[in-house]
Amino acid sequence: MSSKSTRSRVKDPTLAPSGHEKIDWAARHSPVLNAIRDRYLADGTFDGLRVAVSLAVEAKTAYLAAVLAEAGAEVSLASPGPFFVQDDVAAALAERGVTVHASSASPQEDSDAELLAALDVEPDVVIDDRAGLARLLHTERRDLLPNVRGVSEETTSGVAKFAAMHAEGVLETPAIAANDARCKHLFDNRYGTGQSTLTAIMHNTNLMLGGKRLVVLGYGWCGKGIARYAAGLGARVTVCEVDPVKGLEAYADGHDVLPALDAAEMGEVFITATGSCDVLSREHFSRMRDGAILANAGGVDVEIDVEGLADAASEQRRVRGANVEEFVMQDGRRLDLIGGGRVVNITAGDGHPVEIMDLTFSVQALCAHHLANRRITEPGVHLLPAEIDDRVAAIKLEAVGMGVDGLSDEQREFLASWRE
Amino acid sequence: MSSKSTRSRVKDPTLAPSGHEKIDWAARHSPVLNAIRDRYLADGTFDGLRVAVSLAVEAKTAYLAAVLAEAGAEVSLASPGPFFVQDDVAAALAERGVTVHASSASPQEDSDAELLAALDVEPDVVIDDRAGLARLLHTERRDLLPNVRGVSEETTSGVAKFAAMHAEGVLETPAIAANDARCKHLFDNRYGTGQSTLTAIMHNTNLMLGGKRLVVLGYGWCGKGIARYAAGLGARVTVCEVDPVKGLEAYADGHDVLPALDAAEMGEVFITATGSCDVLSREHFSRMRDGAILANAGGVDVEIDVEGLADAASEQRRVRGANVEEFVMQDGRRLDLIGGGRVVNITAGDGHPVEIMDLTFSVQALCAHHLANRRITEPGVHLLPAEIDDRVAAIKLEAVGMGVDGLSDEQREFLASWRE
Amino acid sequence: MSSKSTRSRVKDPTLAPSGHEKIDWAARHSPVLNAIRDRYLADGTFDGLRVAVSLAVEAKTAYLAAVLAEAGAEVSLASPGPFFVQDDVAAALAERGVTVHASSASPQEDSDAELLAALDVEPDVVIDDRAGLARLLHTERRDLLPNVRGVSEETTSGVAKFAAMHAEGVLETPAIAANDARCKHLFDNRYGTGQSTLTAIMHNTNLMLGGKRLVVLGYGWCGKGIARYAAGLGARVTVCEVDPVKGLEAYADGHDVLPALDAAEMGEVFITATGSCDVLSREHFSRMRDGAILANAGGVDVEIDVEGLADAASEQRRVRGANVEEFVMQDGRRLDLIGGGRVVNITAGDGHPVEIMDLTFSVQALCAHHLANRRITEPGVHLLPAEIDDRVAAIKLEAVGMGVDGLSDEQREFLASWRE
Amino acid sequence: MSSKSTRSRVKDPTLAPSGHEKIDWAARHSPVLNAIRDRYLADGTFDGLRVAVSLAVEAKTAYLAAVLAEAGAEVSLASPGPFFVQDDVAAALAERGVTVHASSASPQEDSDAELLAALDVEPDVVIDDRAGLARLLHTERRDLLPNVRGVSEETTSGVAKFAAMHAEGVLETPAIAANDARCKHLFDNRYGTGQSTLTAIMHNTNLMLGGKRLVVLGYGWCGKGIARYAAGLGARVTVCEVDPVKGLEAYADGHDVLPALDAAEMGEVFITATGSCDVLSREHFSRMRDGAILANAGGVDVEIDVEGLADAASEQRRVRGANVEEFVMQDGRRLDLIGGGRVVNITAGDGHPVEIMDLTFSVQALCAHHLANRRITEPGVHLLPAEIDDRVAAIKLEAVGMGVDGLSDEQREFLASWRE
Repeated sequence: MSSKSTRSRVKDPTLAPSGHEKIDWAARHSPVLNAIRDRYLADGTFDGLRVAVSLAVEAKTAYLAAVLAEAGAEVSLASPGPFFVQDDVAAALAERGVTVHASSASPQEDSDAELLAALDVEPDVVIDDRAGLARLLHTERRDLLPNVRGVSEETTSGVAKFAAMHAEGVLETPAIAANDARCKHLFDNRYGTGQSTLTAIMHNTNLMLGGKRLVVLGYGWCGKGIARYAAGLGARVTVCEVDPVKGLEAYADGHDVLPALDAAEMGEVFITATGSCDVLSREHFSRMRDGAILANAGGVDVEIDVEGLADAASEQRRVRGANVEEFVMQDGRRLDLIGGGRVVNITAGDGHPVEIMDLTFSVQALCAHHLANRRITEPGVHLLPAEIDDRVAAIKLEAVGMGVDGLSDEQREFLASWRE
Repeated sequence: MSSKSTRSRVKDPTLAPSGHEKIDWAARHSPVLNAIRDRYLADGTFDGLRVAVSLAVEAKTAYLAAVLAEAGAEVSLASPGPFFVQDDVAAALAERGVTVHASSASPQEDSDAELLAALDVEPDVVIDDRAGLARLLHTERRDLLPNVRGVSEETTSGVAKFAAMHAEGVLETPAIAANDARCKHLFDNRYGTGQSTLTAIMHNTNLMLGGKRLVVLGYGWCGKGIARYAAGLGARVTVCEVDPVKGLEAYADGHDVLPALDAAEMGEVFITATGSCDVLSREHFSRMRDGAILANAGGVDVEIDVEGLADAASEQRRVRGANVEEFVMQDGRRLDLIGGGRVVNITAGDGHPVEIMDLTFSVQALCAHHLANRRITEPGVHLLPAEIDDRVAAIKLEAVGMGVDGLSDEQREFLASWRE
Repeated sequence: MSSKSTRSRVKDPTLAPSGHEKIDWAARHSPVLNAIRDRYLADGTFDGLRVAVSLAVEAKTAYLAAVLAEAGAEVSLASPGPFFVQDDVAAALAERGVTVHASSASPQEDSDAELLAALDVEPDVVIDDRAGLARLLHTERRDLLPNVRGVSEETTSGVAKFAAMHAEGVLETPAIAANDARCKHLFDNRYGTGQSTLTAIMHNTNLMLGGKRLVVLGYGWCGKGIARYAAGLGARVTVCEVDPVKGLEAYADGHDVLPALDAAEMGEVFITATGSCDVLSREHFSRMRDGAILANAGGVDVEIDVEGLADAASEQRRVRGANVEEFVMQDGRRLDLIGGGRVVNITAGDGHPVEIMDLTFSVQALCAHHLANRRITEPGVHLLPAEIDDRVAAIKLEAVGMGVDGLSDEQREFLASWRE
Repeated sequence: MSSKSTRSRVKDPTLAPSGHEKIDWAARHSPVLNAIRDRYLADGTFDGLRVAVSLAVEAKTAYLAAVLAEAGAEVSLASPGPFFVQDDVAAALAERGVTVHASSASPQEDSDAELLAALDVEPDVVIDDRAGLARLLHTERRDLLPNVRGVSEETTSGVAKFAAMHAEGVLETPAIAANDARCKHLFDNRYGTGQSTLTAIMHNTNLMLGGKRLVVLGYGWCGKGIARYAAGLGARVTVCEVDPVKGLEAYADGHDVLPALDAAEMGEVFITATGSCDVLSREHFSRMRDGAILANAGGVDVEIDVEGLADAASEQRRVRGANVEEFVMQDGRRLDLIGGGRVVNITAGDGHPVEIMDLTFSVQALCAHHLANRRITEPGVHLLPAEIDDRVAAIKLEAVGMGVDGLSDEQREFLASWRE
């Protein structure tokens, strides 16, 4: 056990073997990150740099942290909350030289304490989840800001927060919207969330999707992925949106599109994916059918008003393992919440599929590399340059034995001309 | 604890609370079986009768056994093998008055002993899985045969065994091919196996299906369901068949259709669903790519030649939890077997979705009722009368708020006439 | 022009060039029938025999007739009605030595006259469509029955008529239910009807299917194909059925399942595929929305009560080419009927795709060969032997570069045994 | 016949009745454009203005022109080429007061002459297709530029040309990228091209898509729509791309992704949708299989090198109606080109579905309204303001009985904040 790991605070170091097993599995199914490690990260950029990371502590995240550490960085990792911590993975990662501040047993109100502990590394580069580290950097630890070369943000809702900070004129570092890299959101948000959210619901409930009236709230990339796979598994999908064009896309995709209060009356399974608050609240609960299943796939844990649900219920009990809580309404209807209203594929599953996170964390590693090299210095929200994004896709296609063409000079010229 | 439960042999009676939770969940999502219990099973038919059941011991099976017990029968239950036993469910069921002979800790070679113990109830009616109880009745416990009014068989491969027995002239009881009821195989084998097999693989591997080359061996109802949902989740599907018409269906459904040795070279995930032996054997293993995932969804556990796989491997190890075993070949390629080659949705999952088993066990309950009432007495393989099958479907449609039409007299006449 | 063709009665012999073009295209995309012609039909069986055929007169049918003629038979062909005749194909076929009695200009009431003319060939073998020739043989031309070795029937509704005749005890020849060959109904009824029905509707209306509420009446093979492809094109599908198990399949496939009167109120496109009469009648018309599109994909032309529709309308007019008729209801609602209520893919399209009919007519050719060789002599309804059916599928798979496996002896033995 | 129509030059004025039928059908299925006409266009903006339009002359385009004329504009319409003209529609439109310069019989080299004739109206506003009118305005008719308030461009490839003009510094008017409105490209390019391209191919070839190896070249919005519906109809899809991220999307969507030369060897149907030239050229033709079907769905007619194809062929002939040309290669292989290599859904079909063009032309009408009101005056490429785009979607959802939600103030605030 390295000296670094002794500074880690994890729930139970003896769980490490199972954690190593999971991390090794992730490593093996991450051909893109492995190629990027060999081709780009090993150039000495990270030697002596410090990287603070806030991400759900599970196998794929752990492997990203391990790769950065292997590339020479001192890495400290905290989770955005106790529900996003797999303790075996935390223990294994601590053994691999990353400083881990994460335990599923921590009180939720200590989340900030763990994030602050992770910031104690005095980071040069930050990898953030829903702007948690950035918020603390811009409030409680402003002293660390001068040393920060930049932040890379993982989620749609986090990017929105950085944009809000920038609009308020308070953002003091460059932020890369890693989420908005095409190799990230087109795959992670859509296919990753789609598969893992439905897997978590099917696994935890043992219920059938075929024929079910499944309501997807939000038809962004996450909602699109969920709706598509749900339809692919035979569900009858209803979509709720606030953006009429997205609503129209859902209609053309063959789904019903209804206001949420109307959908509340007919749905059998409800999945939120909006990034907004109170998407399902007491008004909706009061209209739902007995036995309705509720889950959140969005980046914030207030999409389902769980507090309101508990208030409205006369009884609350566990009904099928730790991940299914039942709320019995005054009138006897039972509403079943999967994963506590937090992002269900992580709290009641293993998160996104490995291959998806291989893409996402390849993007993140290259964002960190970009920031570490001070390629972006202007405070504000930035995109990863397109060619870096393309590189990730090309490596992945190569890894699965597929490939694309180049444009010929004639084609390039043709596309650039407007005369006949 | 009733006197009956004292006769049960389960692994750990203290696990009962979790088992009750699961059984209650199953009960609640079984509207059809509940309606059939109220409308048909409560007619006194089962008073004083004894029913021996061999089925995987999990929540839905348990609920069927409990319903039969509630209807007046003395029920004894054994599992077709230790891998199909959830010990918490076994413990809970024992508390509900069913005699259970099932433990996940039993050596596999004791399976027959448990089945024989279940037969000790001296059954009037038998519900069987892959003809296990029937085999013992026709060999070791021929003394019990005269009392048996009939056997109802759950699986495709079991029905084939009854047909073989009948062809050999040795079948001495009526057997209902419950599997062949339309409300059973059209749903259970297809949608049930499809959803639960893929859920088990996704849950246990955390791998993505989108883009994967997934090989389905066998395009019967089980294979069709797997292929369809896999395509619905974005996989590129290859089908292997021995029946050219089924192969042609797979082609028209948009899948590639290849001999298994050719498919072996290109597949990333292999799922067997044939009911036959050695569908994947050493010849296939020798051609597979590094990292190939293997699972069996079929009714027999010899579809993948696990023994041959172990022989060919230089190392065998657990790599991601208890359900993923890795076989390292002499040349370094790694093949990962999910669920030990036994039916993967049960050994590495919770079996079919509840709503599917609600249909299946409604059929089984009505088969048992039919046999108990001696509606069929001729030895041989019989189908459930169509009107009983239709009734199950009609109750289910009613439960989900849907419905069908009747034929008018004019239509009936039109359909029956051949003159202009 | 052969002497035979001089006996043909077609609308306009000068149309032959376009007809030859179509027949040649069909021939070229019929690898299976071509292989069967070379391997089986050329054995002299048909030398000197006479074959009467009743089938829609279009390119694929024509090619079947031409292949039988080439194999040595004297072939006479009539259409089951003037709406099923492409005059250019009729003209071309007459030039190829088949006696054709078919014209799109014939009054519908002369259909029987044309069928009777086709029977004048004094057939040894009959290929029939909805039992038209068989009906006349068993009523007006009983004198010809002794010479008839058998009839092969093309459609689901025709097979039902033969079954009705047999049930009444009046069927005097062997009838092969060619429709029930797996290589026929699994492909022709399902994929063939599915693709060609939707193509006809899209081509004739220029309307979008994505998002449309499309009602499929009947969930047999035809309805299943239509529903599946409609969903594949983004439609929201509602199914109406009289069989609860089929209704339940539709539900599990992700469709809504409703009584037809309920569906009438919400549908935007209605497609009948039941084989029954009055599936859509005045009661339904009175509830439909303005602009509803109606089409029939079933084998009989009374599924939509067109007479009742005309009676209920205050005005009837052509609105988009010859194939779209609009019925204006008293209350101003407009209902648009495609293809006159007759089978829409033929009357408003080119019938099933070539490759599908290649399978179907390979089955028909082998049925005719089977009957010609007196392999079946017993009056009644018979199936084509499975091995002949399998042969067709195997040839097709070979033609598309795919293939299946054989069973090993061990597997064969395993599948046939019931002992452990 | 108005005086305006006497200035029109159409092929045959007597064809007008069939054209009116088609335009009326389009009008009736255009609820959005009808609502926009009533709510926005009738405000007097267009009184006395002149609008020049270049669009394929078929029913939906005609209805747009008619609506603008009804709103007070003097409208002149030309087609980008003779292959995009339905003469009956041209004749009918001339009778409705639009000046039409379009005939399917015009030599292709006269296209510019017709576009120039359309410009003679001295337009205030231009609606353009592939920048044809804009090109002439910036070269041969620069005298008209000062009067032009702006151009609205319909196609992806046209938008690229405007961008090229702007990059060269020669664009002198505002151009709205109508194509890039979300209500346009998300629906028109994707679902519209998807459905109509496949319908055209199925209708003209009578071939089956199920099981076919269909190669889509280009995975932009058009290619995505084609690939998705082709898969929905059972095709096995291969995608060729030059953008690795789009290639990766195609992979994750379940398609094969290959360089075009590799795809050339295995494809049975090829559809180009890239906007580039020589996507299929002699190198590809030389590798294709006998019987390969070729069609172009892209906005330019040089995607398939038809000249190169003709040069390579020893024979060229019509094989199935006017729309299927066969090229016989020196080695006997036959390649069949649908629609002459021009955009197949228009030259061999009726263009996009009506409901799709209702959205597109609602966008176009609002773009023209926007330009007419001089809301944009800066030369360059502009987007339609998002709220106008949203309005179109909202009207459409309302028309189909669906709807979206608004954000509450709390949600708005939540989304805009970054502090906890």
